[in-house]
Amino acid sequence: MTTRVTCCQIPLRVGDVPGNRATVKAAVEQAAADGAQIVVLPELASSGYVFADRAELASLAETRDGPTVAEWAGLAEAFDLTIVGGFPEDAGEKIYNSAVVVDRSGVLGVYRKTHLWDTENNVFDLSDDLPLVVDTAHGRLGVMVCYDVEFPEWVRAAALQGADLLCAPVNWPLLPRPDGERPTEVVRVQAGAGMNRMPIAVCDRTGTERDVDWIGGSVITDADGYPMAMAQYGHAGNVTADVDLEQSRIKKFNQHNDVHGDRRTDLYRRTTLLD
Amino acid sequence: MTTRVTCCQIPLRVGDVPGNRATVKAAVEQAAADGAQIVVLPELASSGYVFADRAELASLAETRDGPTVAEWAGLAEAFDLTIVGGFPEDAGEKIYNSAVVVDRSGVLGVYRKTHLWDTENNVFDLSDDLPLVVDTAHGRLGVMVCYDVEFPEWVRAAALQGADLLCAPVNWPLLPRPDGERPTEVVRVQAGAGMNRMPIAVCDRTGTERDVDWIGGSVITDADGYPMAMAQYGHAGNVTADVDLEQSRIKKFNQHNDVHGDRRTDLYRRTTLLD
Repeated sequence: MTTRVTCCQIPLRVGDVPGNRATVKAAVEQAAADGAQIVVLPELASSGYVFADRAELASLAETRDGPTVAEWAGLAEAFDLTIVGGFPEDAGEKIYNSAVVVDRSGVLGVYRKTHLWDTENNVFDLSDDLPLVVDTAHGRLGVMVCYDVEFPEWVRAAALQGADLLCAPVNWPLLPRPDGERPTEVVRVQAGAGMNRMPIAVCDRTGTERDVDWIGGSVITDADGYPMAMAQYGHAGNVTADVDLEQSRIKKFNQHNDVHGDRRTDLYRRTTLLD
Repeated sequence: MTTRVTCCQIPLRVGDVPGNRATVKAAVEQAAADGAQIVVLPELASSGYVFADRAELASLAETRDGPTVAEWAGLAEAFDLTIVGGFPEDAGEKIYNSAVVVDRSGVLGVYRKTHLWDTENNVFDLSDDLPLVVDTAHGRLGVMVCYDVEFPEWVRAAALQGADLLCAPVNWPLLPRPDGERPTEVVRVQAGAGMNRMPIAVCDRTGTERDVDWIGGSVITDADGYPMAMAQYGHAGNVTADVDLEQSRIKKFNQHNDVHGDRRTDLYRRTTLLD
């Protein structure tokens, strides 16, 4: 049995919350029409990303029961979807780079990003959350945001909590890479999936903002870390794969080996990994 | 300043120690003629890999001051090389899947594999070593063997100990993969290099043994995890790159981010990573 997962790689515009919400809505409706069961949206899908300063970010932040999350919950209910999407979270004195999981019952959980990328450090607060792992109608979903995925400790932690599918809203800035090479971000996602036998669905974005461009590299991997579906780099569009999430429960992959069971935690404790 | 690193992707034959030694010698001489400074050999380069049983393995195992290591030390001295290579280590009652580092001064260190692959569990003893990290004339080398590299904890641990280059003798069995995809083993190496800003030199092998074939996927990455040189899959030959090992000391990669400094060990300690 497979689960249809769609990443809505959409163009966003910083500051244009109504426009971004409309873009999300159209992409989610298309995903639902195409049979999606789980939909992943980009990081900061309501607000855009390249904030001039904290004041601008603050003006765009919403609470977890605010209008953006409410709209996504409405879409989830209307089409019986589980939706994972990023938004800037107004938490009183703090503002977090957050991702919410909603389904027909409402909000299932919110994760606040714990590894901040570059100038995010100037505008966002750093969270002390652990990876979100939440049970849904389609299995147990892990959730983290963008740069978080580049820490193998974090991906491992979600997998150890039993995540069947890791959903990662991202805004991957476009950086130079050698001709013909996949972006290192994609490579790291593939590795994280395979080394944990946990499929990963990454939703990236398009739409240049204040001279920052994006990879537009949404990808959905299988439990071995091989891509099942990939965006055409830099182009908007939905990316869909039918993922066998039951594979995630099988960590053993030959007679003797098991991606989690083979870890030598007895030895890892003697290293400086957690110092 | 760069360091010339060569992986000798050679054909091996199980049980043919004299033949394998001659093959190694010829490849190392060629590497030296081409200006190599660091040479990496495959896993179990003296013995081959597909042992019928422990008795066969025992008949091929050598001590760390045995003739194979002595020959490699002689080559290191003759050509002023640092050589990293794998051999089955006779350690009295135990037999380990080991890798030695030799230079003109002799043996600099030996590492015994701590994550055993598949049927290795039937014939080898499991070591409690930590990753070997050893200072050489060409910087600090980290050493681990084959399946070890697929544990991000292990790669991270070597990087945290200051390895400038991770040298990994491997025998990568050829498994199915989707058309056009790099082997997952290569992807994991790329990710491990980039996430630690530590170049990795993997030396694989060729030569079918008892119906087991090999990827022949030797690869040398830069500190970003992009391949600088790759073998033609399945074909014997030396793979060489001039690696800037000073890059490994620079873990910061933009104004705010640092591959090691950004780790949230405060949070990792709250997960089940080391349970």
